[in-house]
Amino acid sequence: MRVMIHIDEADTWRDALAERLPDAEFVTSDAPPPQRRGIDYLAAWKPPEALLRELDDLKGIINLGAGVDALLNNPGLPKDVPIVKLRDAGMAELIGDYVRYGVLHFQRDFDRYRRQQARREWREHAVDDKGDWPVGVLGLGAIGAKVAAMLAADGFPVHGWSRSPKQLDDITSHHGDDGLPELLCQVRTLVLLLPGTPETRHIIDAKTLAALPEGASLINPGRGTLLDEAALLEALGEGETEGRLRGALLDAFPEEPLPRDNPLWSHPRVWVTPHMAGPTPLKEAVGQVAELIEAFEAGETLETVDPSAGY
Amino acid sequence: MRVMIHIDEADTWRDALAERLPDAEFVTSDAPPPQRRGIDYLAAWKPPEALLRELDDLKGIINLGAGVDALLNNPGLPKDVPIVKLRDAGMAELIGDYVRYGVLHFQRDFDRYRRQQARREWREHAVDDKGDWPVGVLGLGAIGAKVAAMLAADGFPVHGWSRSPKQLDDITSHHGDDGLPELLCQVRTLVLLLPGTPETRHIIDAKTLAALPEGASLINPGRGTLLDEAALLEALGEGETEGRLRGALLDAFPEEPLPRDNPLWSHPRVWVTPHMAGPTPLKEAVGQVAELIEAFEAGETLETVDPSAGY
Ligand SMILES: NC(=O)c1ccc[n+]([C@@H]2O[C@H](COP(=O)([O-])OP(=O)(O)OC[C@H]3O[C@@H](n4cnc5c(N)ncnc54)[C@H](OP(=O)(O)O)[C@@H]3O)[C@@H](O)[C@H]2O)c1
Ligand SMILES: NC(=O)c1ccc[n+]([C@@H]2O[C@H](COP(=O)([O-])OP(=O)(O)OC[C@H]3O[C@@H](n4cnc5c(N)ncnc54)[C@H](OP(=O)(O)O)[C@@H]3O)[C@@H](O)[C@H]2O)c1
Repeated sequence: MRVMIHIDEADTWRDALAERLPDAEFVTSDAPPPQRRGIDYLAAWKPPEALLRELDDLKGIINLGAGVDALLNNPGLPKDVPIVKLRDAGMAELIGDYVRYGVLHFQRDFDRYRRQQARREWREHAVDDKGDWPVGVLGLGAIGAKVAAMLAADGFPVHGWSRSPKQLDDITSHHGDDGLPELLCQVRTLVLLLPGTPETRHIIDAKTLAALPEGASLINPGRGTLLDEAALLEALGEGETEGRLRGALLDAFPEEPLPRDNPLWSHPRVWVTPHMAGPTPLKEAVGQVAELIEAFEAGETLETVDPSAGY
Repeated sequence: MRVMIHIDEADTWRDALAERLPDAEFVTSDAPPPQRRGIDYLAAWKPPEALLRELDDLKGIINLGAGVDALLNNPGLPKDVPIVKLRDAGMAELIGDYVRYGVLHFQRDFDRYRRQQARREWREHAVDDKGDWPVGVLGLGAIGAKVAAMLAADGFPVHGWSRSPKQLDDITSHHGDDGLPELLCQVRTLVLLLPGTPETRHIIDAKTLAALPEGASLINPGRGTLLDEAALLEALGEGETEGRLRGALLDAFPEEPLPRDNPLWSHPRVWVTPHMAGPTPLKEAVGQVAELIEAFEAGETLETVDPSAGY
């Protein structure tokens, strides 16, 4: 059985996988043509269109990350080949720490202290207790559910939102179209952990932003397409004065790297990070990839991506 | 029994205490002279020298915070009047969140991303796992021990240091003069939660800073006197290049407010906050003050401040 690997530092993945599954043959996508024939599985992160077209006899594709939007939007993607994605694999804890940092950034007024430091202004703000700081998490998948649980354990009241109804310990769960406004009106920080799909595109627009309480803040480690950027900038307000939306910590953008002339870079209440919230930890991911290949080969029923839902 | 209260918003404290101890009489320090006679107890935060001299028949002083350095250094402090201080009262969890934010600020490279944003630079840094990021906590009192436990629960290996030996779950404990270098050489972030005493003055100087690993970071929610500022600036390096010491998050300063001309305000790798890490939550503190007054009146043996040790 032959597996092609396409990702940055593919050699490291190849060696680790070869050790884990000694009977399989692993080749990287830059291998010379003779070695690229008869590939059964593709394990890839954002494969180019030409590569997908070349591999015309795949039994399965393993997406080396949690987000499948880039893959599903690729015109070279073969129809009817089952796709599986990594489930958590350690990203959730990393994203949880990113979100924890972001929530404290706003709840403890670090955003204001940062601007005060630039003015050499010494002024303390009264702390709002964590218990009075509800956080909303949109998306309760492998990552969102874990992040929500971490925030709840830290002492924040947490509301979550998903497509299907959920029952999660210590989380107030909402779902579907009716559930969203219920959640929005009561959270002080909103965290986006939805996949990028046609349905979630610009889910945060002028209307949803207006449904948040005055002074709410936003954290987006999900996908850049979730946010209508013009509405975001409008809600953040201009100049030195806080708008209805107090601030935003953003890790994902519709175009990455974020173009140099994008106004988010220099907005005083926007914190831009370069898609670093949840890198895929190699060791756990390699274990998952190996298990997925074995399951494919054994003909087991796998939890595959639903292309019509987009995740 | 009569109790004088000296603190910002003393009226709120007076009303809350009067409700808790209806048989006692509470007066604020701005009450007219006739009401200021026959005071048995002083509950105060940084009382002025003249007030301490005026109250010449006190049975006890209750320090309305965790740090007693300002009180002990007050020349008006009567000798032989027992002093008790608030123990935690909720500050530890608040300081724990401050430290948690600070540790993530460095471990997850938010300090670097912040400077990158100013340059519109999109560049991801590989994450060092929390398990490979030992944190040192100097001071394992009511606050330090709780903060150390929170960091350990978050997944960081934690080393602690105190005067006397300690046994704390999940914390590697060091103590005394020999214990300090043992701790310093292995921590990537150092957290200062020692009291300000003659012994701890400038405990972080050129020598201790040089004992930290290259690239270590510092968080000081303790006292400004713990740090030799010149040595700190030297270790941080100048201009845009990180020095041996990668950065510092500072909440306490020898002179507060931090003077406008202090170079820390504008140093690119220093994060200045206005002594906001651990405000005293009123409700829990009022309960402690009431219990302390009852214990004094009942003649119980209290854990008092040792003026010769300074805490
Ligand atoms: N910044 C980073 O470094 C980074 C790293 C990894 C992942 N991510 C992002 O995190 C996202 C989530 O990952 P995951 O592994 O948790 O995905 P997942 O397991 O597929 O979960 C997706 C969640 O979103 C919900 N959802 C999808 N469409 C919805 C809709 N139209 N309305 C309401 N809820 C909807 C799903 O609801 P159901 O549960 O009802 O299906 C599910 O709870 C990824 O897609 C990616 O964008 C970012
Ligand atoms: N930034 C803020 O908003 C804020 C708020 C509250 C408190 N604080 C600071 O936090 C400090 C700690 O408060 P706390 O309530 O935890 O104090 P604490 O209970 O008195 O504990 C002090 C700790 O420091 C250790 N220590 C003292 N002198 C030492 C020395 N020479 N060598 C080694 N260890 C020494 C003690 O060791 P032993 O256990 O062996 O006695 C003890 O573990 C306060 O003094 C204050 O400066 C800051």
